[in-house]
Amino acid sequence: MNGAQALFKALVDARLDTCFANPGTSEMQLVYEIGRTEGVRAVLCLQENTVTGAADGYSRMAEKPAFTLLHVGSGFANGIANLHNAGRANTMMVNIVGANATYHQPRFPEHELINGKIIDLARTVSHWAREAKSASDLAVLGALACRYAGMGAGKICTVIAPTNCHWDPATEPPVTMTPFEAPKVAPQTIAETARLVVNGKKTGMVLGSHLLHGEGLELAGKIAAKTGITLLGETFPSRLARGEGRVPVKLIPYFLEMALKDLASYEQLILVGALTPVATFAYKGKPVLKIPESCQVITFATVEHDLLAALRDLTQELNALSEPVELTEKMESTPPSGVLTAESIGKSLCSLIPENSILVDEGATNGLTIFELTKGARAHDYLSAVCGGAIGGGLPLALGASIACPDRKVIALQSDGSGMYTVQALWSRAREKADVIVIVLKNDDYAILEVELARVREGEANEKMQSMMNLNNPTLQWVKIAEGQGVPGSRAETADEFHQLLESALARKGPYLIEAQIAQNIQAMIDLVRGSK
Amino acid sequence: MNGAQALFKALVDARLDTCFANPGTSEMQLVYEIGRTEGVRAVLCLQENTVTGAADGYSRMAEKPAFTLLHVGSGFANGIANLHNAGRANTMMVNIVGANATYHQPRFPEHELINGKIIDLARTVSHWAREAKSASDLAVLGALACRYAGMGAGKICTVIAPTNCHWDPATEPPVTMTPFEAPKVAPQTIAETARLVVNGKKTGMVLGSHLLHGEGLELAGKIAAKTGITLLGETFPSRLARGEGRVPVKLIPYFLEMALKDLASYEQLILVGALTPVATFAYKGKPVLKIPESCQVITFATVEHDLLAALRDLTQELNALSEPVELTEKMESTPPSGVLTAESIGKSLCSLIPENSILVDEGATNGLTIFELTKGARAHDYLSAVCGGAIGGGLPLALGASIACPDRKVIALQSDGSGMYTVQALWSRAREKADVIVIVLKNDDYAILEVELARVREGEANEKMQSMMNLNNPTLQWVKIAEGQGVPGSRAETADEFHQLLESALARKGPYLIEAQIAQNIQAMIDLVRGSK
Repeated sequence: MNGAQALFKALVDARLDTCFANPGTSEMQLVYEIGRTEGVRAVLCLQENTVTGAADGYSRMAEKPAFTLLHVGSGFANGIANLHNAGRANTMMVNIVGANATYHQPRFPEHELINGKIIDLARTVSHWAREAKSASDLAVLGALACRYAGMGAGKICTVIAPTNCHWDPATEPPVTMTPFEAPKVAPQTIAETARLVVNGKKTGMVLGSHLLHGEGLELAGKIAAKTGITLLGETFPSRLARGEGRVPVKLIPYFLEMALKDLASYEQLILVGALTPVATFAYKGKPVLKIPESCQVITFATVEHDLLAALRDLTQELNALSEPVELTEKMESTPPSGVLTAESIGKSLCSLIPENSILVDEGATNGLTIFELTKGARAHDYLSAVCGGAIGGGLPLALGASIACPDRKVIALQSDGSGMYTVQALWSRAREKADVIVIVLKNDDYAILEVELARVREGEANEKMQSMMNLNNPTLQWVKIAEGQGVPGSRAETADEFHQLLESALARKGPYLIEAQIAQNIQAMIDLVRGSK
Repeated sequence: MNGAQALFKALVDARLDTCFANPGTSEMQLVYEIGRTEGVRAVLCLQENTVTGAADGYSRMAEKPAFTLLHVGSGFANGIANLHNAGRANTMMVNIVGANATYHQPRFPEHELINGKIIDLARTVSHWAREAKSASDLAVLGALACRYAGMGAGKICTVIAPTNCHWDPATEPPVTMTPFEAPKVAPQTIAETARLVVNGKKTGMVLGSHLLHGEGLELAGKIAAKTGITLLGETFPSRLARGEGRVPVKLIPYFLEMALKDLASYEQLILVGALTPVATFAYKGKPVLKIPESCQVITFATVEHDLLAALRDLTQELNALSEPVELTEKMESTPPSGVLTAESIGKSLCSLIPENSILVDEGATNGLTIFELTKGARAHDYLSAVCGGAIGGGLPLALGASIACPDRKVIALQSDGSGMYTVQALWSRAREKADVIVIVLKNDDYAILEVELARVREGEANEKMQSMMNLNNPTLQWVKIAEGQGVPGSRAETADEFHQLLESALARKGPYLIEAQIAQNIQAMIDLVRGSK
């Protein structure tokens, strides 16, 4: 058995069966083994940020580790942005990164970085990163990566695999493949928190990571029903179960000014797998906390803990296990007509989203409105594409989610600026015949930057400033870009056209793209951040 | 004066006048200053690997530092692959990377990396990287970056700029803006090398970095003419002056097996701004050096030295300053017809390349043939897109070269697989009305991987292995992808069609794309690496 074979044995033993890949020369021995390993599916992506973003979407929906195959330092680097998003989403992932042979690296062939090693890059976005020293070591590291990936809320694990570790002989890897156990929250903390949530203070419980869907959310719903506290959610949830029949959660708004207003009355926040709510960016002369200075923040459990066990214990301590919960009701929505706006799209989606679909959101400024208007749609899973703030996650994430759940319709809200970041991801959904509808929210603008520039500019933005934010020179033709990659599509210019297009797209199977030419007015957002109103 | 203003004063004082950018929220104060700074041009790119690749192309042709504006860790990461290529090409570059305010970073807002800082990423691909501690520090670092960038053969310099360093008050930056001086090669080394090149041994002088064009190449030509040594060049030259009337140089072949054959008779190599020729990747049971074990390698000057001064001194020592040099002659080529192949494209280019044009090469397996056939074309500059081996450099590089030299025609040889890596770069050439013809060498395949897999596989590649290398499921329609981004184009399926399309594309100004559907046979390459012939 050589190192490549031992590595794949370790991964397959750990039930990793879907490999998102863009291999290069140094991965050929691994490609050869994937090709010969039954039950391992290979998904080719045309750039590594699609590889890592798709792996993220896959793992969030499959609830097991995704694995990626990446090529040397530059290939790994191309995938960092979406690894960063995945890391902030606590996604379970195992990355195998080919590298030059250990004995060749010191000769500084082309792919060696001028001032560092792949491991230096890998560490920044991995919870755990190692470089194999030998063929047997490679397989052991592969097995360890699988065990760490599933530990706690989920971890990004990266193994650097020099080529001589592929072809040298290796001993068989260990076969104990269950994830390492995450620490439990102490009984004393459970008891203390149970007292805190009934102390009469205005209380929010901030849910993060995988507590926003499934058992975690149901437990939190019982706690809220029993105690009267409010359930809050991270601004960019990795996976939120929402819509009809789901436990309602208020996400903390993105805009600092809006969050401060929403959270002004809270006296205490209990964090469960979430962090203290802070602004994504600091601004001159403004606070960075999204809560009042006086609000007390208590960390009940972190993503390093066994979060589900923590909520189970707290629910039990509160004697709330059979507490009835008031669930979200279906919101009726009539088909919109006239001008095509985020509002009209929100209404169309609210009436048309199918039961059990997956809504991927990289809708940026238009996404905020659509999110609000689809709260009462049929039950669906909602995935934020910007858990780490990096743009370019949406198209890959939707691809991966669809590969994990081939029988569920995926709808991707995609702003045009972010969409161009990983536009290559369209090809892979044609390759995989992924059942994904992409809705390009086309405003020909990085609109969020116009809002953010309004914070710092005196007077109006001049032409050169505008030219650094506008995407209208030339305008992008998304239907052509999609068709060029094998994905059919159509363009909508009115609310009626959009509604009809969405309806017919939902009736078919396979990839489709709708270019929605949106009329957007960002004045309210500008007023909000400039404090003009 | 605030930090942003002080920084731009430093950059403008150092004559940096073209900013390649994809800004985000944390760069708005900088966008505002660029907008108000006369004489600074802003080139918006739709993903950061286009930003850095275009900056690389710009600097190679403008012969002064390019500067980039990048957004936090994920934005920097997106640009690493082409920064790596630029670093290996010894390009002069100054990167300004916005970051969250120093006081906000510890609160771990979304953009903070889970296990590192931007500076950790920056160091790997920068010769020099610093994070500003204050507004005044930001301007000083900006000034230093400009001085380092131009030192020696050229350096990648990166300054991390937290937002509070933009808006806080700053003192005016220093104004001494000439590059730091690179060390000279010692007179003793000059004298020793002058003796070596006439010792009668079969000698190659390997030229690297900026010695492959301009004065460097002319000096090397005189040395070769005087002594009878052979001029060799790095496999992937950053800028090679070639064609009619230029000093001939033999590039070291990419394929190890070919290089070993070519270089078998050499007894000594003199390195001037180049490294010992080694294989890009190590292979099981094969040597890694491209030269015989017995060949002596002497480092005359490194990229850290003043390379031009070194060659001037050596030329003088050899009394070769007015030595007549035999220059490359024009190769006649008749318009090809019939099947469209790399050979036919090479012939078309050889007869049609205009005087003083720029040929950017990311043609991969097809590029090798085209390179050979265009040696005797009209004089042109040749830029390799893969100086660091990372793919995705071609389209950005051609954009930047065109912005540096708006009056010169740029022709980009682009393989389809690599082209998809930075396909967003097409939009910016429409935005800039860049005079670039992209020739997509479409073989629906990562052909180089098929060759490399042939080194490790027993028997034939199975369907799953093929599916990880083939781009035909579905095939890409490049004309649509280009048109969708505002770049007109056409498709050629025969040598005649291609020749006519190229001729008419050369007669017009502005961006254009030709999709060349190539019939390729890689059997000879497979035989070469498998040693079958």
